Amino acid sequence: MLSKDFNDECAVFGIWGDPEASHMTYLGLYALQHRGQESSGIVTLQNHEHTERKGRGLVGDVFSEDDLNDLKGAAAIGHCRYSTTGKALLSNIHPLTARLLSGPLALAHNGNLVNNLSLRQFLKKKGAIFQGSSDTENILHLLAQDPDTNLASCLKRAFLKIQGAYSLVILSHEQLIVARDPHGIRPLVLGKRHWGKNGEFSWVVASETCAFDLIGAEYEREVLPGEMIVIDEKGLKSEIFVDELPEKKQCVFEHVYFSRPDSKVFGLSVYESRKLMGAALAQECPAEADLVIPVPDSGIPSSLGYSKASGIPFELGIIRNHYIGRTFIQPTQSIRSFGVKIKLNPQKEVLGGKRLVVVDDSLVRGTTSKKIIALLRQAGAKEVHFRVACPPTTGPCYYGVDTPVKEDLIASQKTHDEICKYIGADSLGYLSEKALLNAVKPAGTFCAACFNGEYIAFSEMA
Amino acid sequence: MLSKDFNDECAVFGIWGDPEASHMTYLGLYALQHRGQESSGIVTLQNHEHTERKGRGLVGDVFSEDDLNDLKGAAAIGHCRYSTTGKALLSNIHPLTARLLSGPLALAHNGNLVNNLSLRQFLKKKGAIFQGSSDTENILHLLAQDPDTNLASCLKRAFLKIQGAYSLVILSHEQLIVARDPHGIRPLVLGKRHWGKNGEFSWVVASETCAFDLIGAEYEREVLPGEMIVIDEKGLKSEIFVDELPEKKQCVFEHVYFSRPDSKVFGLSVYESRKLMGAALAQECPAEADLVIPVPDSGIPSSLGYSKASGIPFELGIIRNHYIGRTFIQPTQSIRSFGVKIKLNPQKEVLGGKRLVVVDDSLVRGTTSKKIIALLRQAGAKEVHFRVACPPTTGPCYYGVDTPVKEDLIASQKTHDEICKYIGADSLGYLSEKALLNAVKPAGTFCAACFNGEYIAFSEMA
Amino acid sequence: MLSKDFNDECAVFGIWGDPEASHMTYLGLYALQHRGQESSGIVTLQNHEHTERKGRGLVGDVFSEDDLNDLKGAAAIGHCRYSTTGKALLSNIHPLTARLLSGPLALAHNGNLVNNLSLRQFLKKKGAIFQGSSDTENILHLLAQDPDTNLASCLKRAFLKIQGAYSLVILSHEQLIVARDPHGIRPLVLGKRHWGKNGEFSWVVASETCAFDLIGAEYEREVLPGEMIVIDEKGLKSEIFVDELPEKKQCVFEHVYFSRPDSKVFGLSVYESRKLMGAALAQECPAEADLVIPVPDSGIPSSLGYSKASGIPFELGIIRNHYIGRTFIQPTQSIRSFGVKIKLNPQKEVLGGKRLVVVDDSLVRGTTSKKIIALLRQAGAKEVHFRVACPPTTGPCYYGVDTPVKEDLIASQKTHDEICKYIGADSLGYLSEKALLNAVKPAGTFCAACFNGEYIAFSEMA
Amino acid sequence: MLSKDFNDECAVFGIWGDPEASHMTYLGLYALQHRGQESSGIVTLQNHEHTERKGRGLVGDVFSEDDLNDLKGAAAIGHCRYSTTGKALLSNIHPLTARLLSGPLALAHNGNLVNNLSLRQFLKKKGAIFQGSSDTENILHLLAQDPDTNLASCLKRAFLKIQGAYSLVILSHEQLIVARDPHGIRPLVLGKRHWGKNGEFSWVVASETCAFDLIGAEYEREVLPGEMIVIDEKGLKSEIFVDELPEKKQCVFEHVYFSRPDSKVFGLSVYESRKLMGAALAQECPAEADLVIPVPDSGIPSSLGYSKASGIPFELGIIRNHYIGRTFIQPTQSIRSFGVKIKLNPQKEVLGGKRLVVVDDSLVRGTTSKKIIALLRQAGAKEVHFRVACPPTTGPCYYGVDTPVKEDLIASQKTHDEICKYIGADSLGYLSEKALLNAVKPAGTFCAACFNGEYIAFSEMA
Repeated sequence: MLSKDFNDECAVFGIWGDPEASHMTYLGLYALQHRGQESSGIVTLQNHEHTERKGRGLVGDVFSEDDLNDLKGAAAIGHCRYSTTGKALLSNIHPLTARLLSGPLALAHNGNLVNNLSLRQFLKKKGAIFQGSSDTENILHLLAQDPDTNLASCLKRAFLKIQGAYSLVILSHEQLIVARDPHGIRPLVLGKRHWGKNGEFSWVVASETCAFDLIGAEYEREVLPGEMIVIDEKGLKSEIFVDELPEKKQCVFEHVYFSRPDSKVFGLSVYESRKLMGAALAQECPAEADLVIPVPDSGIPSSLGYSKASGIPFELGIIRNHYIGRTFIQPTQSIRSFGVKIKLNPQKEVLGGKRLVVVDDSLVRGTTSKKIIALLRQAGAKEVHFRVACPPTTGPCYYGVDTPVKEDLIASQKTHDEICKYIGADSLGYLSEKALLNAVKPAGTFCAACFNGEYIAFSEMA
Repeated sequence: MLSKDFNDECAVFGIWGDPEASHMTYLGLYALQHRGQESSGIVTLQNHEHTERKGRGLVGDVFSEDDLNDLKGAAAIGHCRYSTTGKALLSNIHPLTARLLSGPLALAHNGNLVNNLSLRQFLKKKGAIFQGSSDTENILHLLAQDPDTNLASCLKRAFLKIQGAYSLVILSHEQLIVARDPHGIRPLVLGKRHWGKNGEFSWVVASETCAFDLIGAEYEREVLPGEMIVIDEKGLKSEIFVDELPEKKQCVFEHVYFSRPDSKVFGLSVYESRKLMGAALAQECPAEADLVIPVPDSGIPSSLGYSKASGIPFELGIIRNHYIGRTFIQPTQSIRSFGVKIKLNPQKEVLGGKRLVVVDDSLVRGTTSKKIIALLRQAGAKEVHFRVACPPTTGPCYYGVDTPVKEDLIASQKTHDEICKYIGADSLGYLSEKALLNAVKPAGTFCAACFNGEYIAFSEMA
Repeated sequence: MLSKDFNDECAVFGIWGDPEASHMTYLGLYALQHRGQESSGIVTLQNHEHTERKGRGLVGDVFSEDDLNDLKGAAAIGHCRYSTTGKALLSNIHPLTARLLSGPLALAHNGNLVNNLSLRQFLKKKGAIFQGSSDTENILHLLAQDPDTNLASCLKRAFLKIQGAYSLVILSHEQLIVARDPHGIRPLVLGKRHWGKNGEFSWVVASETCAFDLIGAEYEREVLPGEMIVIDEKGLKSEIFVDELPEKKQCVFEHVYFSRPDSKVFGLSVYESRKLMGAALAQECPAEADLVIPVPDSGIPSSLGYSKASGIPFELGIIRNHYIGRTFIQPTQSIRSFGVKIKLNPQKEVLGGKRLVVVDDSLVRGTTSKKIIALLRQAGAKEVHFRVACPPTTGPCYYGVDTPVKEDLIASQKTHDEICKYIGADSLGYLSEKALLNAVKPAGTFCAACFNGEYIAFSEMA
Repeated sequence: MLSKDFNDECAVFGIWGDPEASHMTYLGLYALQHRGQESSGIVTLQNHEHTERKGRGLVGDVFSEDDLNDLKGAAAIGHCRYSTTGKALLSNIHPLTARLLSGPLALAHNGNLVNNLSLRQFLKKKGAIFQGSSDTENILHLLAQDPDTNLASCLKRAFLKIQGAYSLVILSHEQLIVARDPHGIRPLVLGKRHWGKNGEFSWVVASETCAFDLIGAEYEREVLPGEMIVIDEKGLKSEIFVDELPEKKQCVFEHVYFSRPDSKVFGLSVYESRKLMGAALAQECPAEADLVIPVPDSGIPSSLGYSKASGIPFELGIIRNHYIGRTFIQPTQSIRSFGVKIKLNPQKEVLGGKRLVVVDDSLVRGTTSKKIIALLRQAGAKEVHFRVACPPTTGPCYYGVDTPVKEDLIASQKTHDEICKYIGADSLGYLSEKALLNAVKPAGTFCAACFNGEYIAFSEMA
């Protein structure tokens, strides 16, 4: 699947006690920006005061060297975000900030609150002025309206009022606080960066471990579902903020598509789980073919799994052009399958006269797959057997993944045969839900609502 | 090899008789910009007059939609360029242009003239004012100082005076002229784009066939060494402009590294030749290992060839981060191997405890390979056997490839064992020159001066 | 006085019922930007919804033609602002906006609230989150926390809580509301723009009448101290929102320096009042001299008055260079009086050997005057008699004028003779407070606290 | 006259032997940019090599502090230019540069060559490649094609071939050369900047003395008509480069409109000559009136002269808004006289019921005057007697002033009465040619071709 169909909302990062906090946050966001390329922000803490820099665009474009040097202090949080609206409002760019009575507060959020509208109405009636449309702003107002000056206590009370997915990184005038919703929907990991010669280290948190790899930090563990960690001068304190933990509902789509293959997510290598999905796919949906071809880049690990399990040779039959800017200008007269062609070019010499198994990580709208298959046929492919390394996507996500509406999900509108015909494949095969969950099993239980419609039943709001 | 070490000078494109000439040129350059990302330019022809747009940066950044619409006319040429100087002078950005007595002229050049300095001195003595430092400007002055008004005749006379590598695309007030030097050093291909319902088509030329694929053009043939093709209202006319053709000296490095794998270069699929190089490498330099790992992306085809020939399983053990902007800010305190890490991340889960064959397309300075091997060891690799899919690079290129100076070429400074030790590998193996030339043999004879020091003996200047 | 010393906070503009509301607001702000050149914003109303555009810089740079076309609707308000901090925070740029329960609200403010800090503390305790540091934001929160849905009623309650100077222009989802504080400190005028062939007109409000002149609107009258005007579909309704009106405290500095000379302010021509000040100055502080020379441009009207009353000929002895960008680069080695010289150039031919009366509108820090006098002497002036068309500035303004702190006001630190010596004049004369107030007397009573220290005694907060 | 009607081509500046050469050139151009605001360039000399920076826009926008620091060396030349084409070609921005056999050369030119086209054709036939459309480029090619290595000798030969107006400033790899055409059409002055404690000074040249004032340089004398001055390590050498000097043909329009009033041009104060013109105008064209009103800013000096000579009081009845950016957006529906109104605002309070003498420096197209008079009548003027401080403009300038074509010059198309009626004045009066020339008489003889049609008869080309 090319990146146009699904979009995760964001990535979060936090660091405490580091002589290069702003630079590390910048690099952490750099490593995480496959999760959001539309805007980015960093807030640092020094002498109880915050400094912030935010902007639209890729991390490398938002921050200058001067910015990073201006972002003084040994603690920082950062965020990058994919905005679903055409033009990201500046006021929606995270970290969100506010000056509370107790001091400045900054907050970065990955996930989505399902009771956003009712909370917003409730808070507006109490006089809250909302700056943007972000669901996260509710959390700020819940904190602002709580007269208690102990931030951790206020947060715990706020967590009783919000429902949905949240991996939060919060910077106050004296603490770094991170928390993960009780179902553990979005990932969040904790690590240490050893920077000093005498064992000094900083605490780091990030959406994925690939951020740790880049800055040379060491992976400690996941932040647990329902866990709040408070880091300050006195050290790190952890507590589970709910009385009773519900079942884990980790997002299986992180393993299917979103996370980087070189990350460990929910304690499991994404590359390895994708290879397992590909191998299972080969068993569930075999094909008589000469070559296994991935849709690059995200389909490569599952293709390798498929190839190995089936014994059919793997070839990089479609070359991806990485010198693509953020935009390009369409010709006025149409070129067939142009939008896909600018990124992907099938190789005639490799594919000509061959029967292909084409493996993609997922199939959402179907329009891209249709174009890819057309290109493969133009390049001389004799047969195209399309294999999808997850089940049919039948429902949208309400927990932080920007899936299309149900009407645009081809699997909710057409039968298996209709889809196969629509995309122009000789055969079509999906991985079963059971096999998918089996591939990620070592990580525990998962939310697969986009595949099976079993949305999470949240407890009532306090 | 990561793209920092070698840099090809440029790509050229031309089109004649197309209702969307400027848009097609833009897209052609888009597909070709792996050959040069520092500047780009397009010149179009309408009513015997030219329009031009040029600028620094990626193709997608240089041209706006308004630019393309302003670039009116059914004929166009374009160029993108990698500049070896820090800041490309605007006056060096191609196409170079001049107003001759006969009218406007624009010229785009891939390659390098070896008699640049003597020509320049000769022309200055005749009163020529040079605007920039480009060797190509000599050609313009040779044309300007020729009193003949027949451009093709002037060009033939000029070709007797210039020596070196040149794939040229020229737009006058009434013709599109393309030419390739007698040794055929740089590639140049000819195609047709069928755009009309009644068989109408435009002629297109480009450095590589991947440009044809994107715009839906059909590959006709290579422009031949020593061939000049004149395209105008009356059609296409070809001639060989030298009395006697020397031996072909096609650049073997195009197949080793520069060209896109999905291009056909010198009539041969680059992907296939690279796989052959990998397979031959497996035979010449076998290794006891658990996995074959490519240095992505350029090392993937030869790795696949190595894996297949050796039977050792292929794994994408290093993940490349493609969300890298043009620049990123270094942390002030050093992170080990940081410069490589921002692009490449080895996967602990895949590599831990394994004996690896790591395949790269070439080994130039050695500094990047050293860092990659260090990262692989940090990720837990037990052994690293480094394999290079070409011979040791011992000399610079004078024909349009921006190789480092001899002193920076590790193979010209150190012995095989010293290099192996320097990069920290358990063993090191290179492809032999013979095997390399064997892999590209179907395409004819090649220049491999950067490997064997046999530079081309150009005939005396007329 | 050159514009570096004093800075008025802002200008406001509003229009209701105009087919070109955004363009008229743009032009109104254009005419008013002597009051603030650091940032600018426009909000329009269509179908009960707002559109806004804001940015840093001059009006002509902030808004593009596309912006004005996107700003749809027949009602609009606008603001331009001088920020006292180096870099204006985007969140401080007016109009300030909020979504209240009743709908969107936008607010533009000229003036300054003196109880900003206590209000802010009071509102934060009630849970308000402040986005910026603007005193105006308090008004938004007072409205947001009022459960009443009648905006005019909420406003009247808010006016009881705020103290200080305010000329306000407010756009709700259905009304344009304007108000002026009970002392009438800052100016605000009401007019009509006749745009239709059948007598259709729009209501306009602006800080000064020069905005009306540019858009071809007709001056109706001042908005009165303590008056709130509500304009909506049903027409215009006015009321005085305080039970008892205090004495008028109109800002005399508007006439001395801030307002454009071609404006009518507080019902009085600024040009005429300045000429009167100059004439009175000639009587109070005569001098034996050959020429009267203004410090251009603001000193011209009072110089003309001085010249006429004294009979000493007027000459434009100092030429002002208007081709000055926002910034220029200083030479590293100092040039004497450079900062003034870049703007002002005395003419040797005119001044050489002459005894000069130099008239400026005010004397604040003294540094600029000192440099001007030095330049005049270098140009050959024989004597320099410096005359200031207002009294010594001894105190800062708390009502919307950005005066330096007391320590930087030369008249609060030095005696008359010390100042004369410091600036290097042969004699120094100020206009008396009595003569100043006499010059503006037809407009009523004034605040002259910056001259006489008599700050306004605000009534207690409700 | 507002600045839209006439545009002088450019300003030149040069400096030799100054520790802050680039900064001084920048400031000199700053002071001179009333002569050209569309583009600007600086070239410096260090160790026989040049550094250059050029760009479109105001001086303050073209050069950054880094640019000035990069422009190393103790000698520099600069240029600013008004381009008559909408978008200045980068290749036309001065200083023009070339690398000759003898080394780098840079050239800045104020004026216009009348034999541009024939020279260009002649040079093209000899193989010259022209980069832009500037007439100045001919001089570079004449030098490049001259085999002599003595630049001064080459220049003298080139001066025999070029005809027209030229004030030239040239920087070679070892000399600063300045020259003025034999008729002395455009101004050029020589000065010294004393920068050292031991009497060290640099030589400076500039179009007008206002540049000297800003950088603290001392005026020495004019560069003479037909004089070439060579400044190098050995000092300053002057020679007259023609055998016989023709009559001086200094441009009278420099005094009428172009030059800054605070400059000394052709040895005469511009402010003083303009006052004399105004006084003469009062005698030649008296009027019964209550007030004398200038069209600001350029009409102020002549208005003062008129007022003094006539005894009618001077008032600044029209206020000019200087907060005008380079562009503003027009309202879609027309506002009467809008284009003038954005800059000029008549004051009702001053003008109402009054009989006015309105003085402008010149009257070219008549459209602006018509609008101004309409505005004055709207503001309540009872009578408007329009007075022009020069004769009727009946012909274009071919020597470096961008006058409209003859068809657009109202005085070449209409009678005196028709013009008076067209602009809507109660009476119209022009200064006579005799009186004009009398006002500038102390400076010698003048070209007044735009008023009297007596164009210069150039000698034949060698």
